[in-house]
Amino acid sequence: MAVAELSPSYVNSRLSATQLPSLSAPVTNRRRLALQRRPRTALISCSVVPEQVKAPVAVPAEDSRGKPECFGVFCLTYDLKAEEETKTWKKLINVAVSGAAGMISNHLLFKIASGEVFGPDQPIALKLLGSQRSFEALEGVAMELEDSLYPLLREVNISIDPYEVFQGAEWALLIGAKPRGPGMERADLLDLNGQIFAEQGKALNAVASRNVKVIVVGNPCNTNALICLKNAPNIPAKNFHALTRLDENRAKCQLALKAGVFYDKVSNVTIWGNHSTTQVPDFLNAKIYGIPAKEVINDIKWLEEEFTEKVQKRGGELIKKWGRSSAASTAVSIADAIKSLVTPTPEGDWFSSGVYTDGNPYGIAEGIVFSMPCRSKGDGDYELVKDVIFDDFLRQRIAKSEAELLAEKRCVAHLTGEGIAVCDLPEDTMLPGEM
Amino acid sequence: MAVAELSPSYVNSRLSATQLPSLSAPVTNRRRLALQRRPRTALISCSVVPEQVKAPVAVPAEDSRGKPECFGVFCLTYDLKAEEETKTWKKLINVAVSGAAGMISNHLLFKIASGEVFGPDQPIALKLLGSQRSFEALEGVAMELEDSLYPLLREVNISIDPYEVFQGAEWALLIGAKPRGPGMERADLLDLNGQIFAEQGKALNAVASRNVKVIVVGNPCNTNALICLKNAPNIPAKNFHALTRLDENRAKCQLALKAGVFYDKVSNVTIWGNHSTTQVPDFLNAKIYGIPAKEVINDIKWLEEEFTEKVQKRGGELIKKWGRSSAASTAVSIADAIKSLVTPTPEGDWFSSGVYTDGNPYGIAEGIVFSMPCRSKGDGDYELVKDVIFDDFLRQRIAKSEAELLAEKRCVAHLTGEGIAVCDLPEDTMLPGEM
Repeated sequence: MAVAELSPSYVNSRLSATQLPSLSAPVTNRRRLALQRRPRTALISCSVVPEQVKAPVAVPAEDSRGKPECFGVFCLTYDLKAEEETKTWKKLINVAVSGAAGMISNHLLFKIASGEVFGPDQPIALKLLGSQRSFEALEGVAMELEDSLYPLLREVNISIDPYEVFQGAEWALLIGAKPRGPGMERADLLDLNGQIFAEQGKALNAVASRNVKVIVVGNPCNTNALICLKNAPNIPAKNFHALTRLDENRAKCQLALKAGVFYDKVSNVTIWGNHSTTQVPDFLNAKIYGIPAKEVINDIKWLEEEFTEKVQKRGGELIKKWGRSSAASTAVSIADAIKSLVTPTPEGDWFSSGVYTDGNPYGIAEGIVFSMPCRSKGDGDYELVKDVIFDDFLRQRIAKSEAELLAEKRCVAHLTGEGIAVCDLPEDTMLPGEM
Repeated sequence: MAVAELSPSYVNSRLSATQLPSLSAPVTNRRRLALQRRPRTALISCSVVPEQVKAPVAVPAEDSRGKPECFGVFCLTYDLKAEEETKTWKKLINVAVSGAAGMISNHLLFKIASGEVFGPDQPIALKLLGSQRSFEALEGVAMELEDSLYPLLREVNISIDPYEVFQGAEWALLIGAKPRGPGMERADLLDLNGQIFAEQGKALNAVASRNVKVIVVGNPCNTNALICLKNAPNIPAKNFHALTRLDENRAKCQLALKAGVFYDKVSNVTIWGNHSTTQVPDFLNAKIYGIPAKEVINDIKWLEEEFTEKVQKRGGELIKKWGRSSAASTAVSIADAIKSLVTPTPEGDWFSSGVYTDGNPYGIAEGIVFSMPCRSKGDGDYELVKDVIFDDFLRQRIAKSEAELLAEKRCVAHLTGEGIAVCDLPEDTMLPGEM
């Protein structure tokens, strides 16, 4: 049993510089990012008139330090161009994820890295945003991504600075948010998380791609998305989404269960409005086997009185069963939301997303982020669907969610540059099972 | 804004029985499985002569009750045959997973359901095995799978009875195992978990597909796999695998880091032996850019003294960083292990799996489960690779792992039908960071 012996000259003759670009480079040790923290503005309570708070101004990228340092094996040189000769790689895209050390991200990041979300020929650079407290966990996530050997995952960076993480980002998936503490009102949460999303909006405005697509998952996600887009005036408002796809998926599942059909036969399901208990799962436009769901299900009492509750109670039920919130299916729904923007929407169908209402054809108030039916050509952009129908029942429920989002907007005026915040949120509309 | 009105006759004219098979069925409520528990044999301590324990006998499928009840939306009728007309669906396969409520499964099940593992045209039935304690969590997992709307996922069943879950199984992914308690010796763990795998082997033997492929993940996985296959004499011993793929993936990552190349340039990495600290990550046969890793890395001291330790310490490092064990990357490696069996191995390369040693060409003792280099035609089967080289250093280390597995085998003789157990395990060889 002899060891194969290769002379150095044999080795050299086999390897040209382009074939093996970093053989001559020094051994790469794992490098870590220095922990750097931007000074935080003091927390502003929503019920206090915030006189000192100015309208948001785009922060110049004063401290952009070029490409942030990479993690472990992802620091290695690779030659994407050389690979183009044999494979049809697309250009590397930068995907920034906040809350990257959390459970939702722990599912989502591996989906993105595997090629399941952006496609099997799309190289990915992941930029992971965490907190100082979670920084070691973030390193753990990066190590697990290394150990997974995903060929499409070409760069991983970890940081606690949004200005570093969002540098050149083409997608920003904003998952991180503070959970609601005991005794905390929705207004408090709006303010607490609003601060985070105002800061992240400023960072996106300063350093992200001018056409970055932003999906806000951290709650209250509609108003967080609004705050984010208002703090990023140089990015099209149309590019900001609040995630209501999990609600849509749950609505489809409940309609399928009720109709006795497999869920791939259910289409055209819209979630209208806020990601809260005022949300409106739309059974009027929904179709089963291509015909109106109302005709198939034929139980108007169930549709009007039980369906919405079933969709909304799902998260709470899951927490009871499973002991924690639904990280896996939330991650699936984020992947679905992205896929809906990067692949053409099937003929005749649509998907729900919380998007900016300016110019909407439904008569919904402008200047809020409202979940509505969208279609995409697969280019990352979307258009609102025109051929939907309304009846009084649907209109009334949409109006209620609209009123709530307008109230939430008044409550965060100090964070959107629209003056003095006035909070008059009447009731708690957090979805059960959410933070 | 008028509601579209469709007359009943219009509805009927559009829908034939095959198009909409269960419209006329009564509303399907979520049904639950009755909790049924098989009597457990008393725990037998490894150091005690187990005179009462008989050699395993295949248990007849006395209580096979036909198809177990399904979960929620997966109970709905669907017509796979009707779909065949438009799509090229394959025949539904049954995939059984134990420890289904745990964190590794929480990642793996969604990968399987998405089509990432068995392919985009392979419908899946998932059979989830949990414990009485975890039964509600199992329902939570099934609910999250419902909410994910995976079109390939056609059936989900949950149960605490392996005879029910393994019924007709074509794949059995045995992830569930008891964690090692404080002060518990490896010998105790071998016995405690060995009991579980003996029972599951009997269940597989009684009710699974005669060509079921079994991947054992629960530790100590090599000897658990041995116990399992010895209790399933009617299933080919060749069909049982112990997972060493995470070790292989980690070894590839460390070689890439050291060589300064991206990990997709590293190939032919074997993990030899036991999934324990006696495992042998093989740098002698490993290749980087197709040439021997030793020639590329050219640092024999690092290869001989640090490389193996780096691979093995990874799990412990991750626990320190991340606060829990590496569920996500373990799930990725299980998916990799399955994909390696259902897709043809790339020309010239191989993968590692812990398989039965009978007939191996390396001179390794027969009758144990040992990780070795395998190739597959993609038909679920594999063959051992013949063209590997050995030197004294590799031989010595392989011999040490072989000796350990032979000792483990003597320690579980009461569970494999080979007589009286004698335990002489000299040291603790659990990998850091594993249960």
